[in-house]
Parts: sequence; structure tokens; C-alpha cells
Amino acid sequence: MSSDSLSLTFPDGSVREFPNGSTGYDVAKSISPRLAREALSITLDGQIRDLNRPITVGGYIKINTWDTEDGQQTFWHSSAHLLAEATQELFPDVKFGIGPPISNGFYYDMDFGDHKVTEADLRKIEQKMLELARNKSTFDRIDISKSDAVALFTEKADPYKIDLLEGLEDGQITLYKQGNFTDLCRGPHIPSTESIKAIKLLHIAGAYWRGDVKSKQLTRIYGVTFPKKSMLDEYLIQLEEAKKRDHKKLGRELGIYIIDSMVGKGLPLWLPNGTMIRRTLEAFLRDEQVRRGYKEVITPHIGNLELYKTSGHYPYYADSQFDPIQVEDEHYMLKPMNCPHHHRIYSSSLRSYRDLPLRLAEFGTVYRYEQSGELNGLSRVRGFTQDDAHIYCTHEQLKDEIKNCVDLTKYVFNTFDMSVDIRLSFRDDKKDKYGGDGAFWNRAQTEINEVADELGLDYVIAPGEASFYGPKIDFIIKDALGRKWQVGTIQVDYVMPERFDLTYVGSDNQKHRPVIIHRAPFGSMERFTSILIEHFAGDFPLWLSPLQIMLIPVSDQFTDTAKEYEQQLKEAGLRVETDERNDQIGAKIRDAENRKIPYMLIIGEREKNEGTVSVRRHRIGDMGSLNFSEFLSKVSLEVKNRVNPPKSK
Amino acid sequence: MSSDSLSLTFPDGSVREFPNGSTGYDVAKSISPRLAREALSITLDGQIRDLNRPITVGGYIKINTWDTEDGQQTFWHSSAHLLAEATQELFPDVKFGIGPPISNGFYYDMDFGDHKVTEADLRKIEQKMLELARNKSTFDRIDISKSDAVALFTEKADPYKIDLLEGLEDGQITLYKQGNFTDLCRGPHIPSTESIKAIKLLHIAGAYWRGDVKSKQLTRIYGVTFPKKSMLDEYLIQLEEAKKRDHKKLGRELGIYIIDSMVGKGLPLWLPNGTMIRRTLEAFLRDEQVRRGYKEVITPHIGNLELYKTSGHYPYYADSQFDPIQVEDEHYMLKPMNCPHHHRIYSSSLRSYRDLPLRLAEFGTVYRYEQSGELNGLSRVRGFTQDDAHIYCTHEQLKDEIKNCVDLTKYVFNTFDMSVDIRLSFRDDKKDKYGGDGAFWNRAQTEINEVADELGLDYVIAPGEASFYGPKIDFIIKDALGRKWQVGTIQVDYVMPERFDLTYVGSDNQKHRPVIIHRAPFGSMERFTSILIEHFAGDFPLWLSPLQIMLIPVSDQFTDTAKEYEQQLKEAGLRVETDERNDQIGAKIRDAENRKIPYMLIIGEREKNEGTVSVRRHRIGDMGSLNFSEFLSKVSLEVKNRVNPPKSK
Repeated sequence: MSSDSLSLTFPDGSVREFPNGSTGYDVAKSISPRLAREALSITLDGQIRDLNRPITVGGYIKINTWDTEDGQQTFWHSSAHLLAEATQELFPDVKFGIGPPISNGFYYDMDFGDHKVTEADLRKIEQKMLELARNKSTFDRIDISKSDAVALFTEKADPYKIDLLEGLEDGQITLYKQGNFTDLCRGPHIPSTESIKAIKLLHIAGAYWRGDVKSKQLTRIYGVTFPKKSMLDEYLIQLEEAKKRDHKKLGRELGIYIIDSMVGKGLPLWLPNGTMIRRTLEAFLRDEQVRRGYKEVITPHIGNLELYKTSGHYPYYADSQFDPIQVEDEHYMLKPMNCPHHHRIYSSSLRSYRDLPLRLAEFGTVYRYEQSGELNGLSRVRGFTQDDAHIYCTHEQLKDEIKNCVDLTKYVFNTFDMSVDIRLSFRDDKKDKYGGDGAFWNRAQTEINEVADELGLDYVIAPGEASFYGPKIDFIIKDALGRKWQVGTIQVDYVMPERFDLTYVGSDNQKHRPVIIHRAPFGSMERFTSILIEHFAGDFPLWLSPLQIMLIPVSDQFTDTAKEYEQQLKEAGLRVETDERNDQIGAKIRDAENRKIPYMLIIGEREKNEGTVSVRRHRIGDMGSLNFSEFLSKVSLEVKNRVNPPKSK
Repeated sequence: MSSDSLSLTFPDGSVREFPNGSTGYDVAKSISPRLAREALSITLDGQIRDLNRPITVGGYIKINTWDTEDGQQTFWHSSAHLLAEATQELFPDVKFGIGPPISNGFYYDMDFGDHKVTEADLRKIEQKMLELARNKSTFDRIDISKSDAVALFTEKADPYKIDLLEGLEDGQITLYKQGNFTDLCRGPHIPSTESIKAIKLLHIAGAYWRGDVKSKQLTRIYGVTFPKKSMLDEYLIQLEEAKKRDHKKLGRELGIYIIDSMVGKGLPLWLPNGTMIRRTLEAFLRDEQVRRGYKEVITPHIGNLELYKTSGHYPYYADSQFDPIQVEDEHYMLKPMNCPHHHRIYSSSLRSYRDLPLRLAEFGTVYRYEQSGELNGLSRVRGFTQDDAHIYCTHEQLKDEIKNCVDLTKYVFNTFDMSVDIRLSFRDDKKDKYGGDGAFWNRAQTEINEVADELGLDYVIAPGEASFYGPKIDFIIKDALGRKWQVGTIQVDYVMPERFDLTYVGSDNQKHRPVIIHRAPFGSMERFTSILIEHFAGDFPLWLSPLQIMLIPVSDQFTDTAKEYEQQLKEAGLRVETDERNDQIGAKIRDAENRKIPYMLIIGEREKNEGTVSVRRHRIGDMGSLNFSEFLSKVSLEVKNRVNPPKSK
């Protein structure tokens, strides 16, 4: 199998030969000593590998430093092992579950027996980790037979590892060892603990073993590490800013939503202010959809199990679904998606090519099971509302329809001044987890790629990120703190038209299959609202603000004038209140500032006599005096143009 | 117990004495021989009784003729027995379930063994009923011991009657016999079959014994009878008109909704046209609610079982609820009502008297179990959307808030030119099925009564029609065919504030309980839409029509002008299309008429040159030529004023 030399292709397209058995380190060094010093791992043909593991087959190679996502993942995976090593030193009886990297750090699930881990414990473990890191221990990969591995972890009395081993095949089992700690692990890891210079253990959570509520609850410790102390400092400042913007905190303070344990976990209750924001977002998208020829429908929140058996989502995705409910001799399920309902509307009448494209839209609330430990405010919930639509079209119409969807999605995010990254999520040709005919897949991927090029989009291609019924375009937005969130998607689907036997009569009088585009710009109203709250730090643009203007009469004798203005502003469609309380003007302003009301209009003697209002902008302060009618046109225009708020001071 | 004379109070308030043991017939005869001839039964202290049964205790008496609801109920109950008698003659092996009167006739559930009842059978049974009616058989009441009754129905081999007997107490069992047919029955019945002059068996349905899907399915035969042939003729004409207006037929034809068995029974899918109607109705009510100070909220479609245990709806109303779903260590249920969710929003923050009244509104979709045999289009479903609101107020605010609710409800129905009957549904003092303190009930009923009087409402009081947590005002509308539908309600609730421990801090700095008003003018969006479809026979007023205007260019060369008008009409917020098909003008008009589009604008040479449109109104025809701008103002005004369509020709 092996030969004397390796042919490696680099990201810039260049191809170079290396002696067989060269390591990633060797390759990096051949480029520059600095790169070799900073390299953490390599990615070979899409798979991350240890930097020091000999390469025996050529392919596409990337050298992963801290500046790459793959590099960070390796770094944090090794940091999880370091966390385990430190914990073992301090708590010799601890049992280990799993410890993977995540998007912003890593965690390790551990069984501390009767000990309840405290904040003080975290600080101690952190110190121990720093101390161990300074030992510059290497991460060593060890191949081991299944029986030896079982013997080892039996001796270590690590029941969870033995449980994991049961699911592994002999011959493919590896351990990683650093210092005094050995873990069952596929790897890869960074060369040594030396590069871990800054460590912060962030918080503790409960997590069921294997995510099964019937199993034991372990203690999950979350942490983050960096190769430089300054990076941690910066991260902690950003974390502080993120905390101030935390949608869970602002969500309650601003009357946007609550989660109530008596109602249920992961089931938000939208309060009046939140409902106003959501209805305004929905109206914004609905108007745009009507202009683009979408038709709105409303479908029930449950569906016969047959729907999901037909679509293939049951029983294959049963883990993320609520249990079925028996009704007479049938079974119903809380709908995990709107698609099958829409497909049945499509097939409820004979469709001709003249009826296509048919664009069915619904703000459809779906329910999916998430472990209670995974739930998080509005961003991870058990019930959420998709701004869903399914476009049924002919093959000839597909590209134009995709373009229209891309255009709509970009329009939506431009409105919020959010920059958008675009990812073409294609299938991984080596895996066989996809539905539908390969020819259709190739065609759909080609078409998506062509559309992206024709529109001049700046995109990356991500093999293996497709959904099981088709390739998709994913939109990743960057918020005001530079954090990235995957939101909208546009998916091309050749599979469901087959499964639901959808047809249209073509101009040739024959039956044909339509193609389906699934799309949702916001993705989920709940999650998108959580992003908006944090993006704007609660200072919503005027058009989205639940209460837009507070009228503040200086004293009782100006209340009538204020109420008159209130009426006129309301008739212009603005959301206004008058603060009639018998309070100091300063207190009223402070209160309106706390409630983040965009405009405060102060009305006293001079204003009344001159027909003016003294305008105060939230966070900005006094904006001087304006004729009332001038103010009215100014704010009407600000709403109409959906102007974003002035940047923070 | 008995004395020599009876004291009877008549509806006009007069009191008269009768010999003890007098019958209703005697009493009627003492008033007029004609009344005695037409009397079918009496109602004594709210209980319907046989006309010929001796009266031994005085009370409030009403003589029931055909013109009263109680009289019709007696008549139809006896007709059900006549149906059973006739069926027994023709199918000697038939087994009998139950046969009650209903609001528009009666039915009898029977077990025909292997025989499948046909339309021809119905006609034969009808004939046999008429023949038997002419025998003038009397309905005779027979007291019987439980053991004798069991022996009798064992001999008759009537297993369902024996099943029913098991639930009855000895000493309270009666039979009724007419001709050759004897039935286990509480009665009452009309004096004889003689007055049944006209009979129509309407249709056949399946019905599970005792409504239990695990029991045998019986054959339910529905029928209606009258004391005069002319009444039946009139009824059948109305039935024919109702069929033309049937919302199930029009619902599909006009693209309003479908029920799809693969999605589920009783779960409507709102098609684009129906969604437009529903969204327009919602916006109409929402705007009115905002004006009246309501705040909108959105809550999930499931809730923790604890909510319904707290409210008392579980397990007591479990029959009409979907089964709970287990989620980790909790149980969740599809919400059968929105109340508990709103109560939890109320109690999510400290409320002061200054915050009250707090009016929380939601278009909330709820799910209730109904037997599949009971489901009917949009009017009886398993999932429906309430235009729900809960008003939390102080006792002092209660009357004003009720007035506001009555005003809103009347405003809503006036918009559709529907006349409204008002019923004050109070508790039945003799029954103990109500929650809450008696003093609160009396107070709430008094307040409701006072409000009704102060508003000068024309109402009836219905004891025993209250909900379990409080008295209510029910609105019964009359549609274009004169049929009555109970829709909106306003309920006063002193019970849930206790159960959910709701409080507010009063001006005295003490905690107090608020009162809750539950109200829903439409009641259910689904059911109300079904009523609207039938009320308008699908010819919706312009503001509700999914498509308001069809532009019809006479030929290709006028399409540009039509498209220009289309744009202008759209900008004015109207729903418009242009029929660009290459078809005859007559065919296009016919098509628009079939789709019940209110306005058709025909554009040809003359119209283009003169800047006019030739206007055609659906069902009315040609309305002559109008300047385009004149037409635009005319229809804009028609939408704004929510003008109802011209009456049918």
C-alpha cells in the first residue's frame, strides 16, 4: 500500500512530494520554522490528525494553527484532557465520561460521587491545570486491543469508559496519554501541553450520561483555554459585554419573554413587548413575501404519524421528537417540521405547470425534544416558530427561485446591518446517509453552485453539511460582538417529491415531479429574536421597538397637550404612551431610558406655546426642540425606512 | 306529602289552584280547549314532564306546544321511539342503544348485526313510521323494578339496554310503551303518536356504544318530524339552501380549507384563501383590541400537566383532552385552553393596582379530543384557535370591564349584520358542580345582571348554563338562514385567581385577589369561519374577500393598461389579479363569478382611451363605466367601512 513518497496538495493548489512517513510537523517546517512552531494539527482530506503522526497516504493537506477553526478544536480537545488530568490529581476517585471540544471551548462530563463541585473547586482545578501545562507533557497516541483497553479501565474503575468501549470495534481503539492521565480517545491532539498558556473554567452544569434521562447525571465542567494570556483577557471582556447583552437577562427586564417552569421547560411565553417585536418581524417578512408571490397557509401543530413515516423522519429522528399520542386507533405527533403538512396541501388538488412555482409560506410552530440540560433561553427551546416556506417548482424554474430566495434572505439581514457569510452545504460523497438519487444530488449541487457564482456571492463549500434530502445554502450572520450565528437556509429537495408522490401536469400533458425548495430566512423566530436582543443590546431600531415614544409632560397642566400629541402619533401608526405620573421629570426620563424607549418628548410651557416638543433620544440625550409636525414626519420616515439605531457611545 | 290542592304559577306570574293529581292536560284545558289540543308536555320547575302525568306538588308551570323548544324536544324524543318501533317491525333482530332528541330532530343508535342500512331502508322505515303514527298509539309510562327490567330486556335480548340498566338505581326505573314497542326511558313523551304528521329520516352515521372507540360501532339514524306536512316541506327547502351554503362544500371549492386524512381527523389545513380571510379577521379584532388597551401575548401549544391539575381541568375533563406525553420526568399535554398560560404570565411579575386592568389577548390554538364520528368540517374540530383574552381587574373595575367586553362583542357581530341574542348563563342553585365560594357567585351574577340592565340589553337568564368556575354572558347569533349559533362568551371568574394564587398590591399596600374575565367574541376562528361561509354563502364582503378585484383585459393589447391598474390598486392595499389568459371574455367572467370575486374590471379600447373601467359586480352584473380613480376611491371606502355585500337576488 505504501510507497516511497507522498503527494500532498496545499490550500493554494500547489502539490509537493514528501518522503512517506513524514509528519505534519515535517511538512510545516518545510514551509517555515515559525509555522512548525505554531502548528497544532493538520487536516488531511477533511480529517483532523495529530501533527506528529506519520502520513502514509497523500491527499489535501492543511496545517492548522490557532487561527484556524480546526486548530482551535484540537487545542480545546487537548485542554479537555488537561482538565481531566488536573481533576484526577485533586479528586482521585472521580470517574470520567466524555470530554469534547465545542464551538467556544470544551467540557468534560465527570462523576464526582457525592461531592458537589463548587466555584472554589473550579479555581483549584484551573491552578492545577496551569501547573500541569507547564510540565510540557506530550500527548501520546497508543493503539490498544479491546481486551487490553477493557482491562485497563476496569483497573482504573472507570465504568463509563467501559460502557463506551462496548460500542467500539477491536482494532480501531486508541488511547491518548499525557503526564499521568490516560484517556480512551480517537484524538487528535496538539503536540504537548506547553502551548496552553491561559485557562478559564467557566461554569458547571448537569448532564445525563449518554444524554439519557434514565442514566446518572454527571457534572459537566465547561472551560476555555488560549495560547496567550492576552487572548483570555480579551475573551473575558467580550464575555462581560455578552453578559450585559444576554437575551435571558434583557428578555425579562424588557418584558420580551419568560420561561416558567410550571408551564414547561424550553417553552417560552412571549410577553406583550416580545409579542409586538415578533409580530412586527412577521409582518415585515410577510409583506415582503406577498410582494414576491408567496401564499400563506396555516396548518395544525400535530400530525398523523404516517406523515413522518412517509417523510422518513420517523422513526429515524425519534430522538429529537416528542413521543406520539394515541388517538382512537391512530398515532399523532407534535409536528417537528411543517414540510409534510405543506406537501399534503400541494397534493390536495391537481397542479398544472401553469400553477408553478407555488410558494406556500407559514409561520409554523414546531416542537422538538431537547434534553432539559441543553435548553437555553430563546436560543435553544423545545417549541419554536419557523418562518417557513416551501416552493414547488419545475426544474427549469429552480435557479430563478433559488436566486429569489437568496435575494430575500440578504434583504432581510441587510435590514439589520448584519454581515452574512454564505456556506454551500453539500453532501460528503464518501458517506451513504443521504436520500434520493445521486444524479439529482449532483444536479442540485451544480445548480446551487451556478446560482452562487451568477449572483457573485462570496461563499465557502462545506462537504458533509447537507441535510439528508438535499444540499443547501446556509447563511451565517455576524452580530455586533462579532459572534457568528447560523440562521437562514435554502434547501433543494428532490427526495420529498418522490416520497409524497407530488406531481404536476406539464405542457406535454404528462405528469412530472416538481422540485421543492425549503427556506427560512430567520430560521426560528425564537432564536432570531435572541440574536436580535444581543445584537442590539436591547436598543431595538425604532420600527421594532415595542414602545416607540414616551410623552413626558413637565407637569399636570401639560398633560392635555401630551394626550393630544399621543392621539396624533397613534393615528400615524406609532406606538406611544404618556407618562402621566406625578413624578419628577428626571425620574420619568430615567425610567424611559431604563425601558430603552427610543424617543422621549418633553412638553412644558415653552413647548406648548410654540407647538414644539423637546426631543430626547435614548442613549444619545437631548436633540433639541422640534416642531411637533417635523418630529412626526421624522419618526414616520425612520420607521418606514427601518433605520438602525445610532451606535453605542 | 300530598294535600288536596296544588298551587301552580304561570309564566305571566299568575297563580292558580288546582285539585291535587290534576294533569297538564287538565291545566291546559282550563285555559283553552285549543291549548289542550296542542299541548305536548309541561315544564314544571324547569323539568319537562308528560302532559298526562298527575301533578302532586305545585310549582312554576309552562304548557309546552310545538312553538316551544321544550315542546319540540318532547315531540322529537317520542319520534325517536316511533323510529325504533318501525325499525323493530322491519328488522326484528335489531338491538337498541339510545335515542335522544337533538337540537334539530332526533336519532336512534341501533345494532343491525351484519346488515348495512341503505337509503332504501330509510324510506321503508319512514313509511312504516307514518303508518304506525296513524295508529294513534299512546305513550304509556310504566314504573318497573330493576330486576323486572333486567328480565324484560334479557328476554328481548337487548344487551345495550341491560348495560344501561346496570348504571340505574332500583326504584327510579321507568319504561315507556307505545304500540308494540317498549323502551327503557326516563321520558317524558307526547300523549300519542297521532300528532306526528310528517317524517323525514335524514342520514346514517356510525357511533360507538357509549362513545367508547373500544366498543362496538352502532348505526345512528338521524331524523326529523313535524306536526304538519307544510313544516317539513319548508324545512327541506331550507335544508337545500343550507346544503348549497355548506361550508364543507364551499370551503374546498373556494380554497378556504381542507381536511386531509393523512394529516389527521378534525385538523383543518387553512389554504391560501382561507388564511387570508382568517388573518383579516384577526387583524380586524386585533386593531380593535389595541384601541381598547389589550396587550397581545403568544404561548406554547403544550403545557406541563401541573397547570391543568392546578386549574382543575385534569383529570376531571380528561375525556375531552389528548393524552399526556411523557418528557423526561414530567408530563405535558396539548393545551385544551389558554387560561393557565395567561395566569402564569400574570403571576410572573409583581402586579400593583396601577397595572390593572391587565388585558392579555392571544389568538391561541388549543387542542381537544372529540370522537372522530362527531367531527364536522370547520365547525367541530380537534384543534381550534380561540380569539382569547383574560382581563385581570379589581372588583371595582369589573362592571366597566364587562361593559367594554359586551360593547366589543356587539361591535364585532354588527360588522357582519348578524343579530345577536344574549343569554346570562347562571349556575343552577340546586346543583353542586361549581367551584368557588357561593358569595362570589351571587356577587358575580348580580353584577352581570346589573351590567345587562344598565346597558339595556335584551337577554334571557339560563340557570345551569354557567361554566364550572363562574357565570357568563353568551352571545347567540342568527345567520342569514335564521339559524342560531352560540359564539362569543364573557365569563366572570373568581375561582382561578384562588387556584393560581393571583394577587395584586392595592393602594392600601396589602395583597388582594384580582377577578378574571375570560372572553372570546368569535369563540373559535375555525367555527366562526364556518358560520361566515354559510352566512354569506361564500359571497364575502369586500374587506374579507381573499381576492377582491379581477382585471380582465378584452385582449392582449390591453394587458399593459390592466397591469398598470393592478399596480395602483395593490399600492392602495387591495388584493388584485389580472386574468392574462388568452381566453374569451365571457369565459373569464364566468370563471371570476365562480370564484366569487367581488369586482371584475373589464378593459378594452374605449376604457383605455377614456381612462375608465367597465365594472361588473359579482352576482349583480354590469354596473356601468367608472373613471378608474373613482372606482379606486369607491372600493377603498367599501373596504374601510367593511360594507356587507348586496343581498342575493
